[in-house]
Amino acid sequence: MKKKVVVLGDGAWGIAIAWLLSHRSNLEVWIWSARPETAALLCKTRENTRVLPNFRIPETITLTADITQAARDAELLISAIPTVYLRATISRWQNHCPPGTSLLSLTKGVEIETFRRPSEILQELLNPGRIAALSGPSHSEEVIHGLPTSVVIAGPDPTFNQELQDLFACETFRVYTNTDLIGVELAGAQKNVIAIAAGICDGLGFGDNAKAALITRGLEEMARLGVALGAGIETYRGLAGIGDLITTCYSPHGRNRAVGERLGRGEKIEQILASWSKIVEGVTTAQSINQRAQQMGIEMPITHYVDAVLHKNKSPRDAVSELMTRRNRTER
Amino acid sequence: MKKKVVVLGDGAWGIAIAWLLSHRSNLEVWIWSARPETAALLCKTRENTRVLPNFRIPETITLTADITQAARDAELLISAIPTVYLRATISRWQNHCPPGTSLLSLTKGVEIETFRRPSEILQELLNPGRIAALSGPSHSEEVIHGLPTSVVIAGPDPTFNQELQDLFACETFRVYTNTDLIGVELAGAQKNVIAIAAGICDGLGFGDNAKAALITRGLEEMARLGVALGAGIETYRGLAGIGDLITTCYSPHGRNRAVGERLGRGEKIEQILASWSKIVEGVTTAQSINQRAQQMGIEMPITHYVDAVLHKNKSPRDAVSELMTRRNRTER
Repeated sequence: MKKKVVVLGDGAWGIAIAWLLSHRSNLEVWIWSARPETAALLCKTRENTRVLPNFRIPETITLTADITQAARDAELLISAIPTVYLRATISRWQNHCPPGTSLLSLTKGVEIETFRRPSEILQELLNPGRIAALSGPSHSEEVIHGLPTSVVIAGPDPTFNQELQDLFACETFRVYTNTDLIGVELAGAQKNVIAIAAGICDGLGFGDNAKAALITRGLEEMARLGVALGAGIETYRGLAGIGDLITTCYSPHGRNRAVGERLGRGEKIEQILASWSKIVEGVTTAQSINQRAQQMGIEMPITHYVDAVLHKNKSPRDAVSELMTRRNRTER
Repeated sequence: MKKKVVVLGDGAWGIAIAWLLSHRSNLEVWIWSARPETAALLCKTRENTRVLPNFRIPETITLTADITQAARDAELLISAIPTVYLRATISRWQNHCPPGTSLLSLTKGVEIETFRRPSEILQELLNPGRIAALSGPSHSEEVIHGLPTSVVIAGPDPTFNQELQDLFACETFRVYTNTDLIGVELAGAQKNVIAIAAGICDGLGFGDNAKAALITRGLEEMARLGVALGAGIETYRGLAGIGDLITTCYSPHGRNRAVGERLGRGEKIEQILASWSKIVEGVTTAQSINQRAQQMGIEMPITHYVDAVLHKNKSPRDAVSELMTRRNRTER
């Protein structure tokens, strides 16, 4: 009998992950859409033109917006809902998900008002039996084109992590495991702030030296806050830490980096966001992390200046100049 | 009275560092060339057209190939000699350098035959009073154009490190200190091997996911060997570790990355090196590090495969395929 896996969310990453799993003959893969009209359209066209144009969702994947149908006999739920919609969307699953269901979260970010991580929200709302998060450098477009990708699956239960590792691993998709769920999730949110800073560097016309130093020092302050919040420092040297941070800072397609680049060129944030239809998570995350760091007395100079440029009208050039001339210090 | 600083070596980085220091009114800056004919040419043209075209070496910097003159009353020697020439070149200074002179090494690499780090060679030959190494992501061209750059100065003596920090730090050149000389120097040699692997990824047409994962896992194995040889693990998260590794792997100008890219496209190493006039340190370093890791029983899969592609005729595509399908494991 096939094992039923349901991906919650019809975005690019949800589709890519469902597609990966659809190659396993022992799985029955579903994608659940939050909106019935999207599910109807996807059923008809088998394509999400907005996020993954020219990619056909195979017929072997069942598409629906019906929670009752999707939830029935599901053994694994995979949440691929963006952070801003996560609480509202998952709340609708509360009476459909039997306690003890296994859950994997693909969401990167933190809830702005509560500073909760995606897995904490899932835990609070669905009380799953086992939970883990998948993160790392993973553009959906590259995964569906079969380009090699390595990710990390992290959760408190090593046995569950390994089960998921066996479920996903194939020749183009390599999976590492880690028990540091806190670090893996926090890093996934924090990197977007450093990516805005990296974009500012690009926009100001700085070079490789400045950008590499910024990413290195950015990783250091990410780790500083992470450790204070219970993360393991090694995670920041891993795929969800430096791995994801590098792609977010170098890929020309990254939204957070692109926003930073326009800031660096002199545009104002209101102007940039007004011309943009997608969520740019780093903009609110910067404020949220900066506040949290200040409350905890943790030094995060790059995050501090990104927040100042975004929300306090600081000029990017002044911010860089002040960052470069802070008092001399040791690496840590 | 001015303090005399002598840079040994007239390559791009030696010139850039001498130029940086020449802005300090309390310093008298010299560049010593190993070859008299180069010194004579530089004196005449004030330009090293081969390595830093269109950059004029200021008249305030004294240029010479005369060791006796250069050594007289020098308070700080800065070695900017490539690893392959280091022992032979520095040997010539043995009877000119008073014991107790302060030394800063800019050389990145390890001596192939002995696996010695540059500072170990300097120590052995010159017996300096104090020693440190400067490393981090620092393209010379960007430094001389005043683009922001951050580096790390590492040595066993924190007071000397701080003196050097004060000597170099300015608005476009930020200096951090670290006492882990071993880690800072080893990372500077190891990164060239991972850069060849990153180039192979580029040559095979892989994407951001693969490259970020490769760099992350590369850093992990660099750190594994480093720690076994006495380095501090944190150094690998710093400017000489991940910082320098990123630029070496992403910059289109990097020689090691470029060699890897041509390997990935199907050329043979003999063919590539025959068309190349400059030193490509990663090619010999890969072999040297792979041997050392095997002797010590340390797993370094990426270095192992780079060595196999370079020296054992392994196909790059097979190497990647084998790397992706190794047994499943945890992040560390």
